[in-house]
Amino acid sequence: MKLIIAIVHDEDAQGVVEKLTENGYGVTKLASTGGFLRAGNTTIFVGVEKEKVDKVIDIIKDMCKSRKEIATAPTPIMGNAGLLATYPVEVKVGGATIFVIDVDRFEKA
Amino acid sequence: MKLIIAIVHDEDAQGVVEKLTENGYGVTKLASTGGFLRAGNTTIFVGVEKEKVDKVIDIIKDMCKSRKEIATAPTPIMGNAGLLATYPVEVKVGGATIFVIDVDRFEKA
Amino acid sequence: MKLIIAIVHDEDAQGVVEKLTENGYGVTKLASTGGFLRAGNTTIFVGVEKEKVDKVIDIIKDMCKSRKEIATAPTPIMGNAGLLATYPVEVKVGGATIFVIDVDRFEKA
Ligand code: NI
Ligand code: NI
Ligand code: NI
Repeated sequence: MKLIIAIVHDEDAQGVVEKLTENGYGVTKLASTGGFLRAGNTTIFVGVEKEKVDKVIDIIKDMCKSRKEIATAPTPIMGNAGLLATYPVEVKVGGATIFVIDVDRFEKA
Repeated sequence: MKLIIAIVHDEDAQGVVEKLTENGYGVTKLASTGGFLRAGNTTIFVGVEKEKVDKVIDIIKDMCKSRKEIATAPTPIMGNAGLLATYPVEVKVGGATIFVIDVDRFEKA
Repeated sequence: MKLIIAIVHDEDAQGVVEKLTENGYGVTKLASTGGFLRAGNTTIFVGVEKEKVDKVIDIIKDMCKSRKEIATAPTPIMGNAGLLATYPVEVKVGGATIFVIDVDRFEKA
């Protein structure tokens, strides 16, 4: 038995939890912030047989992959104090940090 | 040293934390949701010497055991749209998912 | 790779997270309560190469060390019901409980 601890962005949390649940994996979701992936993270715990670790990691990576999106950001116009123009900017979203931990003993009540 | 990670129902969380504390175990409680036991879960961390793992697991199982309770549920009456009758229904409450993790090193500041 | 799980007092959480971040360590912060250090705890996860475990533990111990502070507590004056005097009292603040866990596998998406 392995415990997979994944830290994912809030924006991807719902999707990855749903996908894992659909595939029959039990998922526990904890609110977390900061650090590995800045503010707005969710930590998820998934307990699985070791043969299924690869599948779970594939799902997490697939649902949370680091990607670039175009957003528009207001930018001050040089020499025109107080005037803002919006320009498209590339922002990085997604990403996950995944730890696989060995479980000594697993019990259900 | 072992770290016991238990995911219990909110309804049982207070009881199990009190019982463990009364018995001298240090418990940390994290809010969690979904997955292993649906919404409304609490994740607890208990750090113990390995000789005490069985005792902690016994307490958790005892306080959180999966059990049936009778609840009354409003049920629509067939053929009488809008009319509800209440029937006793069996609901499953409790349950816990417990992971025991080996601790490499334990420190207190 | 090791996963360091530290339970620190809320009053020290911000400081230790900032110090670890400044030193280049990725930190995830979870809200927690009770147990190891009473109410008002924060659980932090830090994933590091095993050569850096000592450094991270040093930072946590340094930022969260158990210490005594002087606070003033209102105390009822004997024989004068309803009258309170304030006396300086020593209170213990800080402290941390640290678990180092071996990581089987570490992945980033
Ligand atoms: Ni984000
Ligand atoms: Ni329940
Ligand atoms: Ni405190």
